[in-house]
This record gives sequence, C-alpha cells and structure tokens, in this order.
Amino acid sequence: MVKSPITARSQDFATWYQDVVLQGDMAEPAEIVKGCMVIKANGYAVWELLQRELDGRFKATGHQNMYFPLLIPQSFLHKEAEHVEGFSPELAVVTLAGGKQLDEPYVIRPTSETIIGHFFAKWIKSWRDLPVLVNQWANIIRWELRTRMFLRTTEFLWQEGHTAHANHDEAVKEVRRMLDVYAEVAEDVMAVPVIKGVKTQSEKFAGALQSYCIEAMMQNGFALQAGTSHDLGQNFGKAFDVQFQNKEGQLDYVWQTSWGVSTRLIGGLIMSHSDDRGLVLPPKLAPTKAVIVPIYGKDGEKDRVLEAAHRIAKEVGAKVDDREGQTPGAKFFHWERRGVPVVLEFGPRDLASGSIVLKRRDTGGKQPMPQAELAEKLPTLLGEMQKNMFDAAKQRLRTNTVLANSIGEVESILNDVTAEKGGGKFVMAHVKDDPRCDLRVKEFKATIRCIPLVDECDGPGKCIVTGEQVDRRAVIAKPY
Amino acid sequence: MVKSPITARSQDFATWYQDVVLQGDMAEPAEIVKGCMVIKANGYAVWELLQRELDGRFKATGHQNMYFPLLIPQSFLHKEAEHVEGFSPELAVVTLAGGKQLDEPYVIRPTSETIIGHFFAKWIKSWRDLPVLVNQWANIIRWELRTRMFLRTTEFLWQEGHTAHANHDEAVKEVRRMLDVYAEVAEDVMAVPVIKGVKTQSEKFAGALQSYCIEAMMQNGFALQAGTSHDLGQNFGKAFDVQFQNKEGQLDYVWQTSWGVSTRLIGGLIMSHSDDRGLVLPPKLAPTKAVIVPIYGKDGEKDRVLEAAHRIAKEVGAKVDDREGQTPGAKFFHWERRGVPVVLEFGPRDLASGSIVLKRRDTGGKQPMPQAELAEKLPTLLGEMQKNMFDAAKQRLRTNTVLANSIGEVESILNDVTAEKGGGKFVMAHVKDDPRCDLRVKEFKATIRCIPLVDECDGPGKCIVTGEQVDRRAVIAKPY
Repeated sequence: MVKSPITARSQDFATWYQDVVLQGDMAEPAEIVKGCMVIKANGYAVWELLQRELDGRFKATGHQNMYFPLLIPQSFLHKEAEHVEGFSPELAVVTLAGGKQLDEPYVIRPTSETIIGHFFAKWIKSWRDLPVLVNQWANIIRWELRTRMFLRTTEFLWQEGHTAHANHDEAVKEVRRMLDVYAEVAEDVMAVPVIKGVKTQSEKFAGALQSYCIEAMMQNGFALQAGTSHDLGQNFGKAFDVQFQNKEGQLDYVWQTSWGVSTRLIGGLIMSHSDDRGLVLPPKLAPTKAVIVPIYGKDGEKDRVLEAAHRIAKEVGAKVDDREGQTPGAKFFHWERRGVPVVLEFGPRDLASGSIVLKRRDTGGKQPMPQAELAEKLPTLLGEMQKNMFDAAKQRLRTNTVLANSIGEVESILNDVTAEKGGGKFVMAHVKDDPRCDLRVKEFKATIRCIPLVDECDGPGKCIVTGEQVDRRAVIAKPY
Repeated sequence: MVKSPITARSQDFATWYQDVVLQGDMAEPAEIVKGCMVIKANGYAVWELLQRELDGRFKATGHQNMYFPLLIPQSFLHKEAEHVEGFSPELAVVTLAGGKQLDEPYVIRPTSETIIGHFFAKWIKSWRDLPVLVNQWANIIRWELRTRMFLRTTEFLWQEGHTAHANHDEAVKEVRRMLDVYAEVAEDVMAVPVIKGVKTQSEKFAGALQSYCIEAMMQNGFALQAGTSHDLGQNFGKAFDVQFQNKEGQLDYVWQTSWGVSTRLIGGLIMSHSDDRGLVLPPKLAPTKAVIVPIYGKDGEKDRVLEAAHRIAKEVGAKVDDREGQTPGAKFFHWERRGVPVVLEFGPRDLASGSIVLKRRDTGGKQPMPQAELAEKLPTLLGEMQKNMFDAAKQRLRTNTVLANSIGEVESILNDVTAEKGGGKFVMAHVKDDPRCDLRVKEFKATIRCIPLVDECDGPGKCIVTGEQVDRRAVIAKPY
C-alpha cells in the first residue's frame, strides 16, 4: 500500500493542514519571498467563488468598488497615533524608485484607511455627499514573523470596505450590517458557523473605537478570526481633516467604518472541513461540483464508455476525467484531494445497467443511481452536503464550547488538552474588557476572542480576574 | 448658459481627455503618489465588465488563474539580460521591511516572467506536465516619468498570461491564439477596431523573441498599443533553468509565452468613443445600460410618475434616478457624462399617453416610444448602438490611414497636421525591421507601430529608409 501523502490530523494538525493545502492544489510556499505563497489554481478558483458571493452582497447593500494606490506616503501613517503604532513594525518600505533615492519613502499598504482618508477629505464637503460607501479588492503586505499558508502570509489578498457617515449611529449600523454580511457568507456559503462579537480594547484594530468580529472554531478547537468590522469613530476623520457641513450648517468630522475579510478565510475553510484524505469543499465553494471517472478495460469498451460519460456529464454539468495514462484509482485520489464534492464512477457494467455510482466527498458514502435520475438528484444532494457540513461544524462548536468559572479552570481546560491534535476548546468565562484580563489569559497562549453580541450562556457574573461584575461570558481560546 | 466642464476635443485633445475621465467618474489623479490614480466607481465598474469578458475567454481556452507574490528578489531580474536592461530604470525597490534593512532588496513586480519562471522550474519535469497555461490578475508598478490617467500610470491593474510549451510551434500557436482573443474583445466588446501585427525588434518586449500586438487608432489619429502577446522563445526557460524531459527522453528547455492587457484599455476606450459632452460607453461595457429620469412639477404628479417609472424600470432592467434636490436637467448631464447608453425621459404627459422618450448617447438621437414596446426594443437598440460605435471607429480608422512612399512623405504627413487636435494618421509605408528605421521614424515623434500580420495594402516594396525589399507596409504613427 502506498503511504498517504497526507499526515493524519490526530498525529500532527499543523502538518496535516500543510499537506491538505499542497495536495489540494490550493497553494505552495514561495520560499524565495519571505512569508509569501503562490495561490495555485484550485485555491484561486475557491477565492473567485468567495469573492463573487461577497461582492454581490456588498453591491446589494449600496457599496461601490474603487481602487486606490498600493503605495502610501510614509507620513500618512503617522497622522493617526494608534494606527502608526500598530502597523509600523509590519511595514515594507520603498526607498528607491526609478533609479533614485526617494525624498519621502512610500510604504506598501498594510491597510488603506490613511490613503482613503486623504481622498475622503477631497470628496466630502456636505451632508449631501454622505454616506460614502466604498469597497476595494486589493493585495496587502504586513511583514509577519511567523507565517502559515492562507492563515498568515506576508502578502495576502483581501477586500477592505471604507465608509463615511454623518453621525455615529449610522456608522454603527453600517459596522453591524457588514458584520452580518460576513456571518451570512461564513455560515451559508462556507458552511462555517461563527460567533459574532466585540473585540476587547487590547485586541481591537489600531485606530478604531471598537472592532467587531466573527470567530470560527477550527477542527482542533483553535479560534480563527474570520472577519472584522471596525467602528473608527472620528479618529481618521480628525487625522485627515475629513470635515463636512451638517444639516444645521455647522462643520463636523465624518464618522468612518472599515471592514475586511481576506484569503485567510480559505485557511479557515480548509481547517473546518477537510479530513485525512485531503481537502473537503462545501458545494457552494467548489470550482468543480462533480467529476465522472470513466472505467474501461477491454478494447472496444473505451469508446462506448467515454461517449456515454460525456453525454451524462453534459446533462448534469459534470466534468469527465478522460486523461490518458492515469488509472481510475489515481483519478479518484486526484479529485478527492482537491475536495470535489461528488465523484461518479462509470464503467461497462454501469453502461449496460443504465446506472452510475456516486461517491460523496463529505461522508465518503457511495450509492448506485439510475443515470436518468442523476440530473434531478445531483443539485439536491449538493444542497444536502452543504447543510450536512454546516451541521457537523456547528455540532463540533457546541461540543467543544465549555464554561469556566475561575481563572484556574480556564487554565486547566486550555493546558490539559493537546489542542493541536484536536482537543482545543472555546472557554466561556466572565471576564472584563480590561488589559489586565487580556494579559492574564495570554499566559495560557490564549486570547479573549470576543465578547459575544448575544449572550448564549447564563447572563451576568463576576470577572474571574478582577472580580468586577460583567454582562456576559466572553470567548477565550487559542488563536490562529 | 453654464460653461461646459469639458474642454472641446478640437480645442485641446489632452485636456478634453482629462475632463472626460474626471467628469465621467472614471478616475482622478492621486497626486500624493507619483503618477498614480484612484480608479473611481464608474471606471472600476467598466474594468470589472472588461475583466469578465477577458477572463471567460481565458478559461474557455484552458487557462487557470493563479496568484504569485508582488515582491520579486532583485537578483531574479538579472537572470535575463535584456529583461533587466529593459525594466531596471522603472523599478520600485523595497529595501526596508519589518523595521530592518533587507539583505537582498525586493522589487515590486513590473511584470512577472521572472518569478513565474522560478516556479515553472519547480513544477515542470516532463513533457507530460506541458503545456502549463497560467493567468494572473494583478497590480503592477513601473516608475514612469510622464503619466496620464489610464494610459500610463506608475501603478496599473492588468492580467498577465504565462505559459510553457514543449516546442516552439505550440508556443507560437498560443501567442497567436491570445492575440486573437484580445482582438475579439477589442472589436466585439470595446467596439474598437484594431490592427494585429508584429513589433519591430527595437520595440519588442525586453526578453522576447518576438512581440505581437494589437494597435488601435484614437480619435486624434494617435496609436494606442492595446494588448501584447510575446513569444519568449527559450530565453526565460534558460534563465530560470526550466528543463523538462521530452518524449524522446532528452532534456530540453521549455518554450514560453506571456501576454497582457491592462487598465490602459480603458484609456483607449475613452479616446475612441467619447465626445464633447463626455464619456460614451459601448453598451457591452456600460455598468448601467439605461436610466429613467422622472419629470414632475405639480404636487400629486410626483408619486404617480415615480411609481410608473419604477414599474417600467423593473420591466426593462433600467435604473430610476429618483434623487431629491436635483433638476431633471442636472440628472441628464449627470448620466450623459458617465456614458450611460440610454436615458429615458418620463413625465406626466408620457404617463397619460403611455409613451416614454428615449435618448441614445452615441448619436444624441431622441425618439418617443410606447412604454409597452420598450422591453422588447431596448436590447435591440443597445445592439445597434454597439455596432454603430464600432462602424464609426472603423470608418475613422479607414479614413485616417494613408500610404506614403518616401521618408519625406511620412514626415510631411506626420508633421503637417495638428495631430493632437484630431489630424493624426496611420501612415502605411514599406519599412524594414531594422533599428536604423525605428530611429529615423522617431525623428518625427512617431514609431513603427507594427508590421501587420495580414497585408491590407499593396504587397512588397522597397524600404523607404534602407532601400531593401520588404514584404509589406508597416504602420507608422504617433503613439500614446
């Protein structure tokens, strides 16, 4: 028996993840450019599907796509004090261009609040110009020390929404609306259940009043921040002098928001659903939904099998793997590792009996089916698989979420398990939004992931660090 | 009368162009980042439509999208001698990152042959791995001295195809196939007629054996290179050691191609069709095809007019401009400047008579039409407009293409006219692919644009510079 090219999850989760990414044709490390990756064909096709789902929702909520420069004058970052402090260590700086030393260096955008703030100041004069609702699809560079394909790379692809509003209420509504859009895409499209919440002040975006997020649980019980939506208050409005005349005729600073998701989502997708045989994709994000693998032995069989396979493929919108010089077994592995939801076996016996054998990727279940029923049943099956994957992930989230009523309990839960192998937990504990609490939790290599927007536990209680009363339990977990 | 915000073409073509771009919500200069622009909502929406048309054709011809790093180790560019010579003066260089001086600087990609060559060498081992057909959508930086929105900017968006083949024949077929795709999109989608040709050796891509191109004529008779497709031979294969075992079992270097079009196409689109009233978009690239401007005066009219306008809009897939505080006249100008193909006037009288007044952007023609016929007639009309715009551009290309039989004639044609105001020409002359000829033509601020693939003139003749026999006439014109 050939050794599987994929390490077992239970043996080494990190290596399993890397194997799934490589074998799934999702990405590979670009070792010659620090911390970067090449997004390969299957990975990029998943990203395109995800982009389409997100972009349609952004447009439906009134946003327009624009494109701003990659390079930002270095001085721009210094205009917002928290922002520059947060991003300075991660900047890549262009000091030479066109053969000359630059008078003022440019930084490659680590995010675009500053440069967009500059243009908002030019565009916005009156309350009539508001709201301004912009989105940008772009690449970003943040010089990270420890990187991992998709989850944290020096360069990544993302979208960043940037909006300006006449008052704080409207801005907060926007922040929440986009958080809802992210949660919907995560749950309905990616089949990844999420918890909507607010970051602590220590964990918020550098320059925001408050950061909202969605947090997902990976198969090892670790948390992944899957999307963020920031209430920037008037911080950038003041830093970039984005003033407008309000309805009362007075000058005021705009209230801004920003929100983003990135190719990191693909890492979360992989860590949520894949198994020891490789990538598993929810049907809505599968570039290829179904593949027919034709099987033939004797001469004369081949033409008849291939002809029928192409006919069926056309009827049901599947692909035929008619590559020469590959055994059917090799073809099954090929598509399995790439996460194709349905693989159809089709040989001479099926040709004779008018049936076809269907294998679903999520459960591995096999069933023969009359060819005539396939076109009707395939979409239903894909819908069931999508739901099944969400339900399984939701069940895992429930099972691995536990309550803790003291810092000692939090510690023993987080330290007791071999989380990397699948024993991680979301620990729900009463804990205050106070830097002391964040620091305490970090001693266990965990963070306060968020304070949920909706209390799903048991209401108020005393902070396990400071003893002060808090509204509800927060989520504590080991993060990616 | 209010002064038009758009300078007349005949007065100053360059200022006209800039006014159309600004007033059409296409782009604005990002003066704080040298030579960059912000691509605004209408411009980005046109780019999205163009991307979709191109991307569908790339996929239909077997290409897969991938994404490679933005940053390229500086040493990579030095591996191909012509390539580094061509691009060195235009590079932006990252020397600092993560707070530290880098041991080896990175350049921001001016094009990706080198980094993709590196990965091809890892991926390609045997003839079975070939062809490799990759495309990338990405941003590019080339430090240009003189910039102009869309036409030449320091940063631009593009796609770059990169392929590897087992022999030169296949590579040349690919180069020609993609040139045909570009020509099809230019003519059928952008309504811009093009001449397919080969660049002279002086004008080819740095590192190519031969560069193929499509050349379009702008309204002032200047030429715009609208797309290029390069036969790279084995140059990059050798530079990056991309070797494979051929069917005969011997090691050989791959034959590569690369091909690209960029946001520059949008500049060409604007310069091909727009007029003194602003942007004109061919229907296939118009983000909004039709807008209804409701007209109402007396109280009570408004609700009925708006209600009917929204009903009609829904039936025909139009948009209603129901913005408050704007006169109908202001709204007409608004959409006219943004190039919307059809604007529909709809007031109380139309409500009573069951008609609507349709105004087409290309000819400015107005016609009343029964509301009931609109849904059926609108798509036909948009098709006619698309064809009309192409025909008009084709006619202009014919009219402004002239023959010259001596270098003196070329000079007098190119110098005699005030080309910037619309008197430019494509001069067809027998001229050899020889650096001396390129240099001679440059004396008139023109270049040899291409040697057409198909002779559309009068066959062979003597080079007007060297006196040597050449196959056919080449295109000489002033370039963007």
